[in-house]
Amino acid sequence: MARINDHYLKLAAGYLFPEIGRRVREYGEAHPDANLIRLGIGDVTQPLPPAIVDAFHKGVDEMAQAATFRGYGPEQGYEFLRLQIAENDFESRGAKVDPDEIFISDGAKCDSGNIQEIFAADSVVAVADPVYPVYVDTNVMAGRSAEFDGNGRYRGMVYMECTEENGFLPDLPTEKPDLIYLCFPNNPTGTVASADVLAKWVAYAKDNDAVLLFDAAYEAFISDSAIPHSIYEIDGAREVAIEMRSFSKNAGFTGTRCAFMVIPKELEARAADGSSVSLHSLWNRRHSTKFNGVSYPVQAAAAAVYSPEGKSQVRELVGYYMENAQIIREGLKSAGFTVYGGVNAPYIWLKTPDGMGSWDFFDALLDNTHVVGTPGSGFGPAGEGYFRLSAFGDRDAVEEAISRIQERYGS
Amino acid sequence: MARINDHYLKLAAGYLFPEIGRRVREYGEAHPDANLIRLGIGDVTQPLPPAIVDAFHKGVDEMAQAATFRGYGPEQGYEFLRLQIAENDFESRGAKVDPDEIFISDGAKCDSGNIQEIFAADSVVAVADPVYPVYVDTNVMAGRSAEFDGNGRYRGMVYMECTEENGFLPDLPTEKPDLIYLCFPNNPTGTVASADVLAKWVAYAKDNDAVLLFDAAYEAFISDSAIPHSIYEIDGAREVAIEMRSFSKNAGFTGTRCAFMVIPKELEARAADGSSVSLHSLWNRRHSTKFNGVSYPVQAAAAAVYSPEGKSQVRELVGYYMENAQIIREGLKSAGFTVYGGVNAPYIWLKTPDGMGSWDFFDALLDNTHVVGTPGSGFGPAGEGYFRLSAFGDRDAVEEAISRIQERYGS
Repeated sequence: MARINDHYLKLAAGYLFPEIGRRVREYGEAHPDANLIRLGIGDVTQPLPPAIVDAFHKGVDEMAQAATFRGYGPEQGYEFLRLQIAENDFESRGAKVDPDEIFISDGAKCDSGNIQEIFAADSVVAVADPVYPVYVDTNVMAGRSAEFDGNGRYRGMVYMECTEENGFLPDLPTEKPDLIYLCFPNNPTGTVASADVLAKWVAYAKDNDAVLLFDAAYEAFISDSAIPHSIYEIDGAREVAIEMRSFSKNAGFTGTRCAFMVIPKELEARAADGSSVSLHSLWNRRHSTKFNGVSYPVQAAAAAVYSPEGKSQVRELVGYYMENAQIIREGLKSAGFTVYGGVNAPYIWLKTPDGMGSWDFFDALLDNTHVVGTPGSGFGPAGEGYFRLSAFGDRDAVEEAISRIQERYGS
Repeated sequence: MARINDHYLKLAAGYLFPEIGRRVREYGEAHPDANLIRLGIGDVTQPLPPAIVDAFHKGVDEMAQAATFRGYGPEQGYEFLRLQIAENDFESRGAKVDPDEIFISDGAKCDSGNIQEIFAADSVVAVADPVYPVYVDTNVMAGRSAEFDGNGRYRGMVYMECTEENGFLPDLPTEKPDLIYLCFPNNPTGTVASADVLAKWVAYAKDNDAVLLFDAAYEAFISDSAIPHSIYEIDGAREVAIEMRSFSKNAGFTGTRCAFMVIPKELEARAADGSSVSLHSLWNRRHSTKFNGVSYPVQAAAAAVYSPEGKSQVRELVGYYMENAQIIREGLKSAGFTVYGGVNAPYIWLKTPDGMGSWDFFDALLDNTHVVGTPGSGFGPAGEGYFRLSAFGDRDAVEEAISRIQERYGS
């Protein structure tokens, strides 16, 4: 009989969010009158901004006429979009990124899951704990771990704990890794990294011949002008870092699907024979062989994020969610919770009351207030005793959720 | 220094189509007045049908209103689309496929490139020669081959020659494979498989514990009512076959991006410990970890393929391309060429005149008639001496191309 990829059998029971979905579904079935408020999964709720909708429609109209119809586009994405990204997301912040170093994709989840394919199967991988599960699971699938330890970690991977003590900023790993996943603003803790912190990582990667896989999907939520939005704002980062970005959270594209990855041409890794190989050219081969480009009308819509109207509307949308974050953060504080994040990030990371376990708090909060959040331990054992709330809800729902929490938990 | 996936270095120079692009670009630069006609890459040229455009616009409009906005959808695709597929593509032909055995994706290229990930790294892979390069390249990247042999093949893979002698239908492999890629209607030869031929493959797979990866991206072009559209029309196929389909060629989605893969729940493969594992559940884990669903408006547009208007418009579109195929086929015949395909498939597979090499004929045809085709040898050494023309061009361009070819090559 054909044989499976046995690494899949190492994967722990389920991806976090399906498990949440299951518990919520069961609770809802048992309590059909409960008015559930979902602040769990980081999914946006507000409609696409009008400038983006207009561009989307125009893109569809072009597909309806022979003269403007577009078939296969470049796998790497259309130049009209890559030019806008290079100028607005990087050049405007003093970071040098050429349009042809940008690969348009259908999601940062896909990019952060796929990028490991171009690296050696025996690469040592370092991730934060707590961590976005995709970084871990995709490396487990590719054989870069040993067995699950039964407590949220895989043997053979390097975990960097993020705790109250270190301000949720991962310490440098004690074991030398080849690949280091970093995410700032952080999912799930909402922590941001200063230029000094990022410079420390760039220097570490250079000194240890490691590659940084920098997930900046939440950069739009940074309001503090001193915090870098891109790793390429740091000198030397082009030689050590790949950056992932998304239109999901700033422009509301979770259901529309567009993102991008940057691989600078300076970035190299070593072949078995010791020679240096361009990661840009390897990824280009991967991307053009296993992917066929993003839908043209979607790319047209994404480009509108950079028009004057688009910029202003996206700013307003981000502002809306950040007001939610403030409402959640302040509301929880006034109810006596210890909270982190929610200032330059759309996630609020709260300590469970009385050292309660994360899943116990999940069940209790659901039962007591009908509010759905995400158990911190679902992101790794260092998340135990924490809980994530997302600021992506509808304003009324956020206010109602906080009022219920205050009523139940406030003194 | 971080280490790369060395298997990438085995890959031969370039993917076929970029090489064609390069030669055409250089020719165009050297001959700026040449009116080039591209019948090479299998890319559609006609606009999206009106019913699909309407549904696409409606999908965009839903994203513009809070009440109808959609964030993350199910990774597997929306049920409204999966239900239509199950009913119209399978049930209507007597093939049993449940909606939850269907995984919506952004392309058959992606699916046919990604599916190998759930199988063991040392699986033996069988492909036809000539073959769609993605099947081969993605397995090379994953380490299922030894070195390139310098003549279009990789050592360690099993090739099944498709020649004039066997009617371009691959013979059963002499070495026992674990995974067998089949494509009917075939890209590049335009060959179709009868129910008897498919039944032979199902029986072979069952007898040899192999899995069939059946690419049916061109099924819409089958006009002969005796030819199966799906492998699941064959008894027993649900236990041995995965099927891949696409909206690219029937509904003109090459730039819009939507496809799907079917994995029956009966289908199993073996783990290292000898136990049987469901491929459906493995792929579900892969798909929901490394993919985040297809853009909602695109899925809404794809569903319109199954509305009464959509069906009729897609039939018309397919008819247009099949008239092109007939014009090419008959035109080439009358010019003295030996031609295959082009009856139940949108590709015409012609013998080069006087045993000319495929790339030599590519250059000669480009120079003599300014018509761009695809060299058969680009699909494998058994394609040497053949040449592929696509029926996806605009009618005027197709007629002009054939008239130029007749003028230059006709007697």
